[in-house]
Amino acid sequence: MEFKVIDGGVCAAKGFKASGMYCGIKENSTKKNDIALVVSDVMCNTAGVYTQNKVKGAPVIVTKSNLEKTGGKAKAVIANSKNANTCNADGEEKAMEMCRLTANALGIETEQVVVASTGIIGQILPVEPIKNAVPELVKKLSYTGNEEAAVAIMTTDTVKKEYAVEFEIDGKICRMGGMAKGSGMIHPNMATTLNFITTDCGVSSDMLQKALSGIVKVTYNCLSIDGDQSTNDTCMLMSNGLAGNAEITAEGEAFDTFKAALYQVMANLTRMLAKDGEGATKLLTCICSSAPDLDTAIIVAKSVIRSPLFKCAMFGADANWGRVLCAIGYAEADFDISKVDVDFASAAGKIAVCRNGAGVDFSEDEAKKILTEDEIEILISLNDGTAQATAWGCDLTYDYVKINGDYRS
Amino acid sequence: MEFKVIDGGVCAAKGFKASGMYCGIKENSTKKNDIALVVSDVMCNTAGVYTQNKVKGAPVIVTKSNLEKTGGKAKAVIANSKNANTCNADGEEKAMEMCRLTANALGIETEQVVVASTGIIGQILPVEPIKNAVPELVKKLSYTGNEEAAVAIMTTDTVKKEYAVEFEIDGKICRMGGMAKGSGMIHPNMATTLNFITTDCGVSSDMLQKALSGIVKVTYNCLSIDGDQSTNDTCMLMSNGLAGNAEITAEGEAFDTFKAALYQVMANLTRMLAKDGEGATKLLTCICSSAPDLDTAIIVAKSVIRSPLFKCAMFGADANWGRVLCAIGYAEADFDISKVDVDFASAAGKIAVCRNGAGVDFSEDEAKKILTEDEIEILISLNDGTAQATAWGCDLTYDYVKINGDYRS
Repeated sequence: MEFKVIDGGVCAAKGFKASGMYCGIKENSTKKNDIALVVSDVMCNTAGVYTQNKVKGAPVIVTKSNLEKTGGKAKAVIANSKNANTCNADGEEKAMEMCRLTANALGIETEQVVVASTGIIGQILPVEPIKNAVPELVKKLSYTGNEEAAVAIMTTDTVKKEYAVEFEIDGKICRMGGMAKGSGMIHPNMATTLNFITTDCGVSSDMLQKALSGIVKVTYNCLSIDGDQSTNDTCMLMSNGLAGNAEITAEGEAFDTFKAALYQVMANLTRMLAKDGEGATKLLTCICSSAPDLDTAIIVAKSVIRSPLFKCAMFGADANWGRVLCAIGYAEADFDISKVDVDFASAAGKIAVCRNGAGVDFSEDEAKKILTEDEIEILISLNDGTAQATAWGCDLTYDYVKINGDYRS
Repeated sequence: MEFKVIDGGVCAAKGFKASGMYCGIKENSTKKNDIALVVSDVMCNTAGVYTQNKVKGAPVIVTKSNLEKTGGKAKAVIANSKNANTCNADGEEKAMEMCRLTANALGIETEQVVVASTGIIGQILPVEPIKNAVPELVKKLSYTGNEEAAVAIMTTDTVKKEYAVEFEIDGKICRMGGMAKGSGMIHPNMATTLNFITTDCGVSSDMLQKALSGIVKVTYNCLSIDGDQSTNDTCMLMSNGLAGNAEITAEGEAFDTFKAALYQVMANLTRMLAKDGEGATKLLTCICSSAPDLDTAIIVAKSVIRSPLFKCAMFGADANWGRVLCAIGYAEADFDISKVDVDFASAAGKIAVCRNGAGVDFSEDEAKKILTEDEIEILISLNDGTAQATAWGCDLTYDYVKINGDYRS
């Protein structure tokens, strides 16, 4: 299923307002928006997945606790960039304060607020600028405020990430849209960075969680920029039911359609995150097919997309397929390496470089032409089953080193 | 125990000759030595550890098979750089041919030859230059040929790596020395790259293997340059018994002394490999102490030393300890993150940056001074036991990208 792509990001679904602004969380920074608010007109069923890092940002702990208290209900999201509020002794207190400020200004309960932060780890979060900003954020809320919000959660991202689709369930038009931020410290395990997805399609909290966990596994969790798993990974999915469909409470055709829409939104946001990885000049998509099972396909595709040597070769447009095979070889999964085929492909064509685990003759000139494009596919066939998975990543460049070698980026 | 450091590398022990020369394995390359031979005057007990990558270089397969046939006996090592002889349909045949040529020239059995290759993966190995070189290599063999051999196994290494010690067992002077090559595709699991260690101390094959496997775990396996595990990792330990001690056949004081000597040789070679990592400007040593057990200490130290974001911060001399804590947090081990302390140290001093999992005030100027040195220690205390481990690595720099983005490096 492929659904119609629409505008509106996190405001594409009925009844979601958003706003964003600059409040000055980090001194001497550019005046880029640094705080975002998303609010639903009515209560939302809400599902989340979070970082599995032992070091958890304080907002992750507070959001989980809030959603436990409300049984998976939320009405608003407050999120800031420029400071991760992580590894600070007073972090949880500050994260709760952000919820309290937001709840008071909106006239809702503190526990109905989702809070998220992204930026530098280990610096005390200044609450004063946020306190001053919240009333104005509430005043600015609008059904077209999605861009202001999407910009506010950006850190080293060079472009904002938004995607939305329209689909039909029960004869009702439903909409779903999201925003995401990258673009370093990305090797997710359960979720990635900050991601907020809203929908007016009515889905129970349980089924929302089931859909989100399932789709995260084959989208965000198949993304690697640099192998570093963030401390603040959060992915929230909120459903306010305003599309008017009968609430989805079980498996079935409606749930399948909903999941397909969610896959389309999340896979496209994942792709945007990969393409805008820190310092990236090329989007790399690794598709592992003919695998004995889905997990094997995921493990192999992720192993290749993470390899620093392979990423450097792609930066240099060098058809060094030995590095692909090397990374396939150390993937922790069970398959026969002597059956593996590898091809490189792009808008400029497709070329076979390895058959049955050994090199084949190919034209270096043709390979160079293919790899000089800015979107490259690495096609791996294990020739041992029917499962398939995709992993997304980017090349490793001078600029990745520059961005992350600079003082406290 | 700290033993006297001596010269001689792989020829430091009694009865080991070596040679190295240029034979032209890769066209249009500099005339650096590309083939090495090491020969013992008498038969050696021999132990090995090898890559765990599913893609195994043909020489790894042939060497393992040879040592199985002889029950862990070998007399010679033939090793080349510039071509890994991996992922080639005729790879094993070529590796066996290298053993045959060497054995014929030395008048020994084919199975008594250890073979190893390092270099580009997936290009057919030309045997002709090797065939022409072997007689000359044999003619050049000398008790002072260690340097010629050490240079011949270098790939992108900028310096040769040799280390040797002298120790006493049974009132007999024993010697042990080794040579190693780096310097990319290094994230070992069981062994790293090519490493050859020779000793005249008499040790049974079983105890030799036991010592080697134990020390590899806390030296080569605690080294990460880039997280890419090579296909050709091989570490051989050969003992010819010419020191005249009673052969070590069981645990005890003599075995402990032997292991301490082996640790000193391998830890120092590991350190050299880290310092000469591709593009490295800084040696990073991460010591995890007060851990509940050795495995936890190893896992935590390796997780930090592998983190690309942390490695970039060190390149920039940025005391971004949040990235250290982030990498500790995603280490797959069981400990209490809220007890963790972190310090940075170097010749310029020592500074506390994190206590009990949270940041502490420190002077950025002082931190900068410490991190501007070219050998940095990252000291992590888990405050939860008495185990300790060290991991070695280097910073991530523009030059790593340059070296590996260039055509087929």
